[in-house]
Amino acid sequence: MRFFKFAIPFVFFSAAFSQKSSTMNDWESKFRSIPSAEKQREYMQRLSARPHHLGSPYGKDNAEWMLGLFKSWGLDAKIEEFEVLFPTPKERLVELLEPIRFTAKLREPALDVDPTSGQFEEQLPTYNAYSIDGDVTAPLVYVNYGIPDDYEQLERLGVSVKGCIVIARYGASWRGIKPKLAAEKGAVGCIIYSDPRDDGFYHGDVFPEGPWRPRDGVQRGSVMDMPLHPGDPLTPGVGATAKAKRLDLKDVKTLTKIPVLPMSYSDAEPLLGSLRGPVGPENWRGALPLTYKIGPGPGKVRLKLKFNWDVKKIYNVIATVRGAQFPDEWIIRGNHHDAWVNGAQDPISGMVAQMEEMRGIAELLKQGWKPKRTLVYCAWDAEEQGLLGSTEWAEAHADELKQKTVVYINSDSNGRGFLFAAGSHSLEKFINGVAKEIEDPEKKISVWKRSQLWRIVNSRSPEDRTEARTRPDLRIGALGSGSDYTVFLDHLGIASLNIGFGGEDGGGIYHSIYDDFYWYTNFSDTDFSYGRTLSETAGTAVIRLADADVLPYDFTNFAETVRKYLGELKNLLTNLQDQIKEKNKQIGEGVFTAIADPKDPYVPPSPEEIPPFVNFAPLDNAAETLTRTAERFEKALKAGGGKSLSEATLRSVNQRLIQSERKLTHEKGLPIRPWFKHLIYAPGFYTGYGVKTIPGVREAIEQKRWKEAEAEIIRVAQALENQAALIDAVSKELESSAK
Amino acid sequence: MRFFKFAIPFVFFSAAFSQKSSTMNDWESKFRSIPSAEKQREYMQRLSARPHHLGSPYGKDNAEWMLGLFKSWGLDAKIEEFEVLFPTPKERLVELLEPIRFTAKLREPALDVDPTSGQFEEQLPTYNAYSIDGDVTAPLVYVNYGIPDDYEQLERLGVSVKGCIVIARYGASWRGIKPKLAAEKGAVGCIIYSDPRDDGFYHGDVFPEGPWRPRDGVQRGSVMDMPLHPGDPLTPGVGATAKAKRLDLKDVKTLTKIPVLPMSYSDAEPLLGSLRGPVGPENWRGALPLTYKIGPGPGKVRLKLKFNWDVKKIYNVIATVRGAQFPDEWIIRGNHHDAWVNGAQDPISGMVAQMEEMRGIAELLKQGWKPKRTLVYCAWDAEEQGLLGSTEWAEAHADELKQKTVVYINSDSNGRGFLFAAGSHSLEKFINGVAKEIEDPEKKISVWKRSQLWRIVNSRSPEDRTEARTRPDLRIGALGSGSDYTVFLDHLGIASLNIGFGGEDGGGIYHSIYDDFYWYTNFSDTDFSYGRTLSETAGTAVIRLADADVLPYDFTNFAETVRKYLGELKNLLTNLQDQIKEKNKQIGEGVFTAIADPKDPYVPPSPEEIPPFVNFAPLDNAAETLTRTAERFEKALKAGGGKSLSEATLRSVNQRLIQSERKLTHEKGLPIRPWFKHLIYAPGFYTGYGVKTIPGVREAIEQKRWKEAEAEIIRVAQALENQAALIDAVSKELESSAK
Repeated sequence: MRFFKFAIPFVFFSAAFSQKSSTMNDWESKFRSIPSAEKQREYMQRLSARPHHLGSPYGKDNAEWMLGLFKSWGLDAKIEEFEVLFPTPKERLVELLEPIRFTAKLREPALDVDPTSGQFEEQLPTYNAYSIDGDVTAPLVYVNYGIPDDYEQLERLGVSVKGCIVIARYGASWRGIKPKLAAEKGAVGCIIYSDPRDDGFYHGDVFPEGPWRPRDGVQRGSVMDMPLHPGDPLTPGVGATAKAKRLDLKDVKTLTKIPVLPMSYSDAEPLLGSLRGPVGPENWRGALPLTYKIGPGPGKVRLKLKFNWDVKKIYNVIATVRGAQFPDEWIIRGNHHDAWVNGAQDPISGMVAQMEEMRGIAELLKQGWKPKRTLVYCAWDAEEQGLLGSTEWAEAHADELKQKTVVYINSDSNGRGFLFAAGSHSLEKFINGVAKEIEDPEKKISVWKRSQLWRIVNSRSPEDRTEARTRPDLRIGALGSGSDYTVFLDHLGIASLNIGFGGEDGGGIYHSIYDDFYWYTNFSDTDFSYGRTLSETAGTAVIRLADADVLPYDFTNFAETVRKYLGELKNLLTNLQDQIKEKNKQIGEGVFTAIADPKDPYVPPSPEEIPPFVNFAPLDNAAETLTRTAERFEKALKAGGGKSLSEATLRSVNQRLIQSERKLTHEKGLPIRPWFKHLIYAPGFYTGYGVKTIPGVREAIEQKRWKEAEAEIIRVAQALENQAALIDAVSKELESSAK
Repeated sequence: MRFFKFAIPFVFFSAAFSQKSSTMNDWESKFRSIPSAEKQREYMQRLSARPHHLGSPYGKDNAEWMLGLFKSWGLDAKIEEFEVLFPTPKERLVELLEPIRFTAKLREPALDVDPTSGQFEEQLPTYNAYSIDGDVTAPLVYVNYGIPDDYEQLERLGVSVKGCIVIARYGASWRGIKPKLAAEKGAVGCIIYSDPRDDGFYHGDVFPEGPWRPRDGVQRGSVMDMPLHPGDPLTPGVGATAKAKRLDLKDVKTLTKIPVLPMSYSDAEPLLGSLRGPVGPENWRGALPLTYKIGPGPGKVRLKLKFNWDVKKIYNVIATVRGAQFPDEWIIRGNHHDAWVNGAQDPISGMVAQMEEMRGIAELLKQGWKPKRTLVYCAWDAEEQGLLGSTEWAEAHADELKQKTVVYINSDSNGRGFLFAAGSHSLEKFINGVAKEIEDPEKKISVWKRSQLWRIVNSRSPEDRTEARTRPDLRIGALGSGSDYTVFLDHLGIASLNIGFGGEDGGGIYHSIYDDFYWYTNFSDTDFSYGRTLSETAGTAVIRLADADVLPYDFTNFAETVRKYLGELKNLLTNLQDQIKEKNKQIGEGVFTAIADPKDPYVPPSPEEIPPFVNFAPLDNAAETLTRTAERFEKALKAGGGKSLSEATLRSVNQRLIQSERKLTHEKGLPIRPWFKHLIYAPGFYTGYGVKTIPGVREAIEQKRWKEAEAEIIRVAQALENQAALIDAVSKELESSAK
């Protein structure tokens, strides 16, 4: 379900690009010539031929077909099943009762040119999974994107959503945040629609003339409370095997609190057009030809939803290549195979690239390659509903995974354009090294060079531009949530990466029936050249990790990134103090009442307590320790690392290094959401997908819980000190081997 | 024709607001109780009852009615006539010939609730005055606002307008710039339409439900090349009296080079909808429900225009109060009375405030007030077509005006909200002093306090906010063009101010048939309380100027403002150098070609010469001299000024001070536009209304004419030195009187 639109290309710097670097070995070189664009096209056509969502016949069929294919390549493959809660609609109704009566269509029409768009019997209806049942009638309020800033704005305008149904547009946050916040504010229902400003005609021609969302296109999607925990709602923290202990439906924590339904902009237009009351601020206005007013009402809307609360089987396809030298060190690679409907882009474009990567690996094995480490290739089911396939599998195998996993590398949808990469910063240097050697199919320069040039042009400040030009490694983003890396990184503390290509092709078919083979082969990576490039990129990373002597973690970039985050946290607090001081001063000056237009509704803000200073010293000290530790490790590696180490030393060093990311977790997890155990990276509690780095501290400051901020600083500092101690032990071992 | 939308409130600071300050005299106090809101309502109803544009029967009737009224109040009033070129449409046709045939309505419908909207026989059709005749058929190109940045963008997209008809939306520049630039780029015709994004439903309910532009509303307006010179195109530089020597039509310089016509967004929608080609960048997209594509074509559009090229009589109403002590020192005050159609807001809302101000002055005279100086009250005709009434009058009386005029104070349309003021910075301190004593009718604090608070909230930086809180005088803007101050300030070098209220009521009836009494009394200053406040503000300024001993010019604020402009010019050059250096570097790095999407049209930029350093020293020195001079003057005034001076000294000092603004002019005017003689303020050659301060230098840098920049620096420096010498002579005189 990864949504690429706002990704910043991940870019790399190097003084000169060499087609064949010293780190490139023969197996890599052989591998890169194998992946085929044509085969990816064939796989996509087959996998996206019919709707293949969680629990569908064709979803199972796809899993079995892949299993057969993987086996036919000589891989040791199997299907691992789980059983998960999956509600599907029994009844969906949205009606405007007054001033005019209007019943929403809630249906995407078939298009003549698009051969799979008419498979109505197998398509899931347009809905948001894990909404509760409900039947509410209430005035409507337009809440823009329905994020915290929007509610702050509503307060200034004197509008409450209490007892109302909110209508929010998709965008600016993960969709599940919208009903969650609306419920917290007292709303009784939530409608989410796709405004043409965000992915429709505002951007270009709509499907089938162009790639953008047509007037009746609807974005399906999960609204479970994933920031609490993803995965099967009935089995939090444990694998949803047939025998697993399950919660009663009434005890489930991750369902919504109010009924929620998505709709198209053709359905939303009469609802929005019926609203009166204040006009939304500029950044609330979409591209429909109407004045975006907020309400409430005056008309009333009825929202009625009823679901089948079924438990369904899901099918993860897992293929394993046993390591020749270190079989208990695992490199895991994954992409999901389930879709909301036909899902050619999401996820099949990424799945087919992984399949060609797997075929390439299988070819190498036939040619005699013996990877030192174990490779685990996963095709996940039920990602769309809340990362269920990966989460249940990883929860089921948690102990073994924590012990053995070196890295998890994820991909999801893929497209034309720029490499993006995000993940653990201990892998920043490593993935930089890989991307330097992959050629961009459109420009015939390396993918990192192209991304670097993008960043030079799109820098926000001269400082950023200088950094883009001169930093040896270009920065990778941190991971929030939105795809299958979540359980590995956030729950198990496994160093993870998420990679793919995108940025050139727009599109508005996300989670609709129009995300299909016709769309993809007309409007995205039509010749699958970037599909091939993704196979090359991920495969090269896997081979390099599989055969490395000392595992290629690097802690200098990580330490520098931690210092950067620490600077951000201090600025966050200072800015908050300054803003509140200034606001209080302005309240004292009478500014807000004096400048308000007496003809417009306006509620001036109230004075607020100025945030106290917070003791950042433990984090400052830990970051300092980590920095010194990372430098020592780098030196030790240069002096004593490499081929000269004995297998026993390598084994011991690597076993420790594998645990380095685990040191950044805490068994009790984050405050109020213990499933999230990583103390450096997490999806935001009020952003959903968007990352919050050092989340315990950052969210405590944002939400003005000062004691918690102080306590979290100590926990994070301790984790960093623990990691530093582990790295120091490795350095010591390397130093003594070098003697 | 003043358009308020983007004005920043003019604001003032004072530690405490006293209802009765030491500078307030009894006549001011008496005066302020006179202006009546109810009378303003009556005047407006009468003046806007029928269309009253240049040359219309009702326009003449209005002038005669005002003349009678002014005389009835005991004022010495007369009408001064001129004869000016005024084209009106004989034929107007816009047709889309393919892919579908569509003929534009070019007509605003009457509305039942709006009693004056159906006066079709007297209404001017929707058109742009001073477009040439023409009949062209060509593909259409959408050029956004049609300003220089937009053409830069078109170049990157590989789109040329050569041989095409451009369609531009209103906004971002004065309208006359759009056909001027289009013609320079090779277009053969120009359509200007009102996008609902800019003044339509995007902002709120449209007329008659709300104040915003309805789908068929059209903005009329002049497109003469006013940055070259305003006023009658046939008599540049001289008064258009009956006997004046006139140019042949073929020798006129200020007509457009291509035919131009405005239209509504309902007419524009099919034209824009017919375009293909690249999608416009984000800031090109309006609020119509379509994808904003650029073209060219593929469909062709025909634009046919034919005008009656008549010469018409215009009627300025001039009322004079002869000064008792210094009759040859004139305070001039003006507002125009002509409109595009009924013009309740533009200009009647300002005109009626001036009328009540005049009645107040007439009352004071009856009560025995004898102003020391002469007051000249003007109600201008033919402002809308290009400031014709004021320009011809001022050109006709140029010598006397240059000799005698102390200040020109202008108003135009008026509304609810915040005081705005712009003009000569030698009057900044003075107008600050006035505004401190005027009460805001909505908030019962002074109008300057309210505006100051607005500025505190809306500051762009902490520095601006501190300035808003602490600078003794709050800054006034510089004047570009757009109303009748232009000839006084820019051509004659008379210190000028433009004042009014606005900022609370939106609106989209500008220059349409819907700008009428119904609209104004439903959606703007419905109780005329701000009309009354404008009368108070301007009247207080007039009384204070009329009775001052030493004229209240101040040069410290002016000198500081000049230093600020000088800093801006230096930054402008540095930024240009940096930008071009960076762009050249990126071209060298291959950035532009490497990141472009091969599926999209894109033309990378070419390297440019890096701007040379320029010698700013003469301006630095002049600014320094002026600063010292201003300080000396301030000191001399404190020591020797005030009531103790003899009448002879006062006469001598004031005669010199009157000339101080004239010293900022140069008889040869600005490069390529000699009519504009002020070296510190001018409307931009490519902005039209928007001011360019120190225009000779600024525009030379912007347009990369380096030798001209150097030469202009010397001219401006000399003017500032000349002014400083004059002020020093005054200081000397004051110092010796103090002995």
